[in-house]
Amino acid sequence: MKITAIREVAIPLRSSLRNSAFDFSEMTTSVVAVLTDVMSGGKPVVGYAFNSTGRYACGAQMRDRLIPRIMQAAPETLLDASGSNFAPEKFLACMMQREKPGGHTERSVAVGTIEMAVWDAVAKIEDKPLHAVLFERFSQGQLAQKVPCYVGGGWYAPGKGIPQLEDEINARLAEGYTTMKIKVGGASLSDDLARLEAALRLVGGGPHLAVDANATFDRTRAMSYANALAPYALRWLEEPTDPLDFSLLAELTQTYASPLATGENLFSTQDIANLVRFGRLRSDRDILQMDIPQSYGIVQFSRTLEMLSAQGWQRASIFPHGGNLMTLAVVAGFGLGGCEAYPDVFGIFAGFNDDARVADGMIQLSDRPGIGFEGQHDLYKVMRALA
Amino acid sequence: MKITAIREVAIPLRSSLRNSAFDFSEMTTSVVAVLTDVMSGGKPVVGYAFNSTGRYACGAQMRDRLIPRIMQAAPETLLDASGSNFAPEKFLACMMQREKPGGHTERSVAVGTIEMAVWDAVAKIEDKPLHAVLFERFSQGQLAQKVPCYVGGGWYAPGKGIPQLEDEINARLAEGYTTMKIKVGGASLSDDLARLEAALRLVGGGPHLAVDANATFDRTRAMSYANALAPYALRWLEEPTDPLDFSLLAELTQTYASPLATGENLFSTQDIANLVRFGRLRSDRDILQMDIPQSYGIVQFSRTLEMLSAQGWQRASIFPHGGNLMTLAVVAGFGLGGCEAYPDVFGIFAGFNDDARVADGMIQLSDRPGIGFEGQHDLYKVMRALA
Repeated sequence: MKITAIREVAIPLRSSLRNSAFDFSEMTTSVVAVLTDVMSGGKPVVGYAFNSTGRYACGAQMRDRLIPRIMQAAPETLLDASGSNFAPEKFLACMMQREKPGGHTERSVAVGTIEMAVWDAVAKIEDKPLHAVLFERFSQGQLAQKVPCYVGGGWYAPGKGIPQLEDEINARLAEGYTTMKIKVGGASLSDDLARLEAALRLVGGGPHLAVDANATFDRTRAMSYANALAPYALRWLEEPTDPLDFSLLAELTQTYASPLATGENLFSTQDIANLVRFGRLRSDRDILQMDIPQSYGIVQFSRTLEMLSAQGWQRASIFPHGGNLMTLAVVAGFGLGGCEAYPDVFGIFAGFNDDARVADGMIQLSDRPGIGFEGQHDLYKVMRALA
Repeated sequence: MKITAIREVAIPLRSSLRNSAFDFSEMTTSVVAVLTDVMSGGKPVVGYAFNSTGRYACGAQMRDRLIPRIMQAAPETLLDASGSNFAPEKFLACMMQREKPGGHTERSVAVGTIEMAVWDAVAKIEDKPLHAVLFERFSQGQLAQKVPCYVGGGWYAPGKGIPQLEDEINARLAEGYTTMKIKVGGASLSDDLARLEAALRLVGGGPHLAVDANATFDRTRAMSYANALAPYALRWLEEPTDPLDFSLLAELTQTYASPLATGENLFSTQDIANLVRFGRLRSDRDILQMDIPQSYGIVQFSRTLEMLSAQGWQRASIFPHGGNLMTLAVVAGFGLGGCEAYPDVFGIFAGFNDDARVADGMIQLSDRPGIGFEGQHDLYKVMRALA
């Protein structure tokens, strides 16, 4: 059994959104198909993935280096011990040949996206949902049938005031979400506090509201937001500093008692180790948000988890970045804290299965084999065209 | 005045080298030409650069995002206050539009290479060597006519034993170099010590010999090498840890009294700030080696220097990565510690002007306008073909 081809295409997100740091008008993502010669239901099994959102498409790295390395490897070197399925950790090692240490992001997104598509194929070959395959390999106890899912929103847009924000939040609550995350930092502190208070009145208090500063604050602004937000005891304050400014983060942990959240803009196990150590994040309350397809994929994520576990961190503290089916499978399979959702945002890349249902802040898992993109019609149309 | 086009091409290095971490058999680099409508000697001024060595070509990022952003900017927004030359800091800001915080390496190499080519054009428009332009803007005192230059080598190769290493070192000493850097970590510690002792006999003692572990040691091996190397009081021990393992680096500074060197695999000002702070590097002896075209270019390097200066670091502690004319211009223009040379390595991308002369460990600067690639025949042939 072997990989017969790996194909990719860059798709524009066509999003008009902006947060406090940047807008998405040029944003693209790479959609990947890993074709195999394993037959299932009369058709070859194909694994699919995309490179999450917020980092540009990375097809050149795939075409120039990663895909040739996989296609040139002897097929049996990419199989598991039984020889009856592919071994994602061997794909990771194969792709990392001739890569210089450090400098992760130039390749971590491309590597992780291909690795994620390999997992989709692996689970389809086992004829199980990916979350079930991951649970068997990496977890213990009882596999949940639904997982916590909060909803992100509260973006800035021309003409969007508090009434429009309230409409947005009411719509999300009506859809079944119970925790909402809104943007801060794209307006003045006083305007942001007015938005926050409006949101709090609707969601029912601090534990149901997180805020996201998108890494744009300097020290002065970070401190003034932290001080102003402290009395609200929010679910979390996300990215109040540059993603790599571990000193300022450590300083904030001394003055801001409620949870801080960060990690979506770090792409290696070593960066996350530095974050928790030098950023002095508190394992009893702070939240880690690495993006798994953008950070070398699931195998490397399992190594990051081992490192974190040795430092006293619980899986419940991890809410991975990326409101998509890949993240949902990992959250369920590893028993993480929860998943994020961005319905109606990022075009065809937003959200989950078309038949996904959220109730009481929990999202139901599907039993489609693999990641289950086959249940996400508009995205699957793009994917299927590759295969 | 305006930029009329920016063109790039990926060129294979065709190198058979390997260090302890990886081999260069697939390595490529992007060559860039920034074409202007400024006439000089009857021809339009063109700025050239390449993305140094060790990181793969990055043409896709240039073509997809960076070049369109520059070409779509109103030309006057890219000029300096006088309107008579281009302003590299405005090119940097223009290219960084719509880029998400963090995740530097995916774009820092492409951004820095274009920025470096803009500086080549800026200096040609001033009709001065780039080192002279940089000295006027960023330095004080007397511009040197030659700068310290050490030579790297001592690579591992099949059939290469101590006699061949000795031949290599003798040849370098005959060429005028007085300090040599050799690889360690690609052999056993005892074999590496035998290589080191052979090298020491030729170069004349520890202050003339540096060793480079290329970031592959785990904690055990880093400690055993540090302990074994300590008695030799080498010029420096380079990359004894993963580039981002600041904890282990801090630990080494407690046990290894001679200079440590690192930084070529960090690509942002914030990463370097973390390195010196959390790695506890010692400003009185340790060496920083960022690669300037790979780290957003010269303007960002000047900001890194400001940050370092505020932490008590001297410019003499910086020996930038990349044995090429771009690095040489920055070393001379900013008055840094010195330059590295890799003659006969990395094909047409190795070395300096064809007429460059090294004597007593110092390399003479050329007075060609700009970076001076016009004096490096085989490389310039590739560059000129773009314009």
